[in-house]
Amino acid sequence: MLFNKVTIIGLGLIGSSIARIIKQKNLAKTLVAVDASKAVCDKVMELGIADEATREIRNGVADADLVILAVPVGACGAVAEQIRYALKDGAIVTDTGSVKGTVVEQVMPHLKDNVHFVPAHPIAGTEHSGPEAGFTELFIDRWCIITPLPDSDIQAVEKVTALWEACGSRIEIMDVKRHDLVLAITSHLPHLIAYTIVGTATDLEEDTKDDVIKFSASGFRDFTRIAASDPVMWRDVFLNNKEAVLEILQRFNEDLTGLQKAIRKGNGQQLEDHFTKTRKIRREVIEAGQAA
Amino acid sequence: MLFNKVTIIGLGLIGSSIARIIKQKNLAKTLVAVDASKAVCDKVMELGIADEATREIRNGVADADLVILAVPVGACGAVAEQIRYALKDGAIVTDTGSVKGTVVEQVMPHLKDNVHFVPAHPIAGTEHSGPEAGFTELFIDRWCIITPLPDSDIQAVEKVTALWEACGSRIEIMDVKRHDLVLAITSHLPHLIAYTIVGTATDLEEDTKDDVIKFSASGFRDFTRIAASDPVMWRDVFLNNKEAVLEILQRFNEDLTGLQKAIRKGNGQQLEDHFTKTRKIRREVIEAGQAA
Repeated sequence: MLFNKVTIIGLGLIGSSIARIIKQKNLAKTLVAVDASKAVCDKVMELGIADEATREIRNGVADADLVILAVPVGACGAVAEQIRYALKDGAIVTDTGSVKGTVVEQVMPHLKDNVHFVPAHPIAGTEHSGPEAGFTELFIDRWCIITPLPDSDIQAVEKVTALWEACGSRIEIMDVKRHDLVLAITSHLPHLIAYTIVGTATDLEEDTKDDVIKFSASGFRDFTRIAASDPVMWRDVFLNNKEAVLEILQRFNEDLTGLQKAIRKGNGQQLEDHFTKTRKIRREVIEAGQAA
Repeated sequence: MLFNKVTIIGLGLIGSSIARIIKQKNLAKTLVAVDASKAVCDKVMELGIADEATREIRNGVADADLVILAVPVGACGAVAEQIRYALKDGAIVTDTGSVKGTVVEQVMPHLKDNVHFVPAHPIAGTEHSGPEAGFTELFIDRWCIITPLPDSDIQAVEKVTALWEACGSRIEIMDVKRHDLVLAITSHLPHLIAYTIVGTATDLEEDTKDDVIKFSASGFRDFTRIAASDPVMWRDVFLNNKEAVLEILQRFNEDLTGLQKAIRKGNGQQLEDHFTKTRKIRREVIEAGQAA
């Protein structure tokens, strides 16, 4: 048993998946679920994935060894502020957010010196949300990036690492700033692009839109899956990783303008060269064992 | 048996899949493969997916009831010119290209009056190319859009329809112009965007690029698969559906600029509203039976 008492705040796809694993693997003596929504708390109890579900956040975290913030990244600061005086000495706080820089900035000022914050980001998810969407296999063989702070307590980092290893994740230790840049490219920009293109399609005339949906399997379908991800979670990602996303977006725009010009001018060689170059990246992704 | 003699020109992913199906289902008494590459012809004979494989295009199409152009769309005109006098009276010519307008423009002037052209587009594919990449299940339950011309011979259209039904496809009859617009949205723009973003990533510093590949599962991976599609085929798609692609690209750019501005200004409500709207489209794609 890794922990005496674990409290998960936010029982969406990620939080409820962690809850299921903690129960299944018996990683904690007591598991408490905290969620602002009564409907979510009721669902958690109905699913039997926590010992207790409550909207009372301070009571929920009392005596917890580990508190997991599984809320949208924009909410982490407010949650930290609320639980400040309810946390026990020596408690570990971790999160699951897709952005680390602003989360660290927003959470740290609210934590007492004898509470340990270990930011973490499991790179896993689906386009579904809510406590029903979670499942115990979600993190298996997926990366979990842990971004310890310069003065992070080593034992606290080890405990959080042990939790994610128990979830089946592969662990990577990374610097906060680097995490936010890498994720801006691999995750945040692709989501923004998918949200854009699916939005562009929704604005078409009704009969064209119907055909777009009917023939979506030709490429568009992949984008609709990405663009079906949780709106609030992703709103917060973009607001909180603004700098890195805008920088990468600028590069993307320059490259798109270049290809647009090549199409307009009928420059086939430039297009073919570009498409040949990108094909190599796919091979590297496959070689890295990242292709499904 | 649907045909006495079928000739497939171009034995890539699509052409070799059709060849496999024709052999498997015994749809033709004789199946001839024509390819400009000796290596491809040798591979076709080694695979046993045609009765004969030749680089001699005129001999290849002689006496054929049906000639299938499965070459990049930019090559269709030149192929039609080459086979003009070798086609028998009453022969049917069809194609498999992702663009229909320019193919019709380029092929029609070269065909004699007593030869029937029935343009078709099977919406199916993978990121792999070449005769080894084909398989008999490629078209099952996928759409095949047939775009007959105003004066198309009805029996010729029925014959081509019967071929695609035998491949397991769902048939849709559509106007040439509408086809090119719908595909620009559902397929051509998504491919262009994927090619762009993967290209943007390849230009990053080496260590960042390594991390992008390592953590590609967070969204980027889906784009690498699309951006691994055949470079020559896609070069020709963009050169030949220029007008529709550039029009849709302009709308996309406007929408992307709008979201970029929302991120820069921290307009969370606009982002959330947009992301909520796109989520609905996914549900419609699922309801239309198009989600995997």
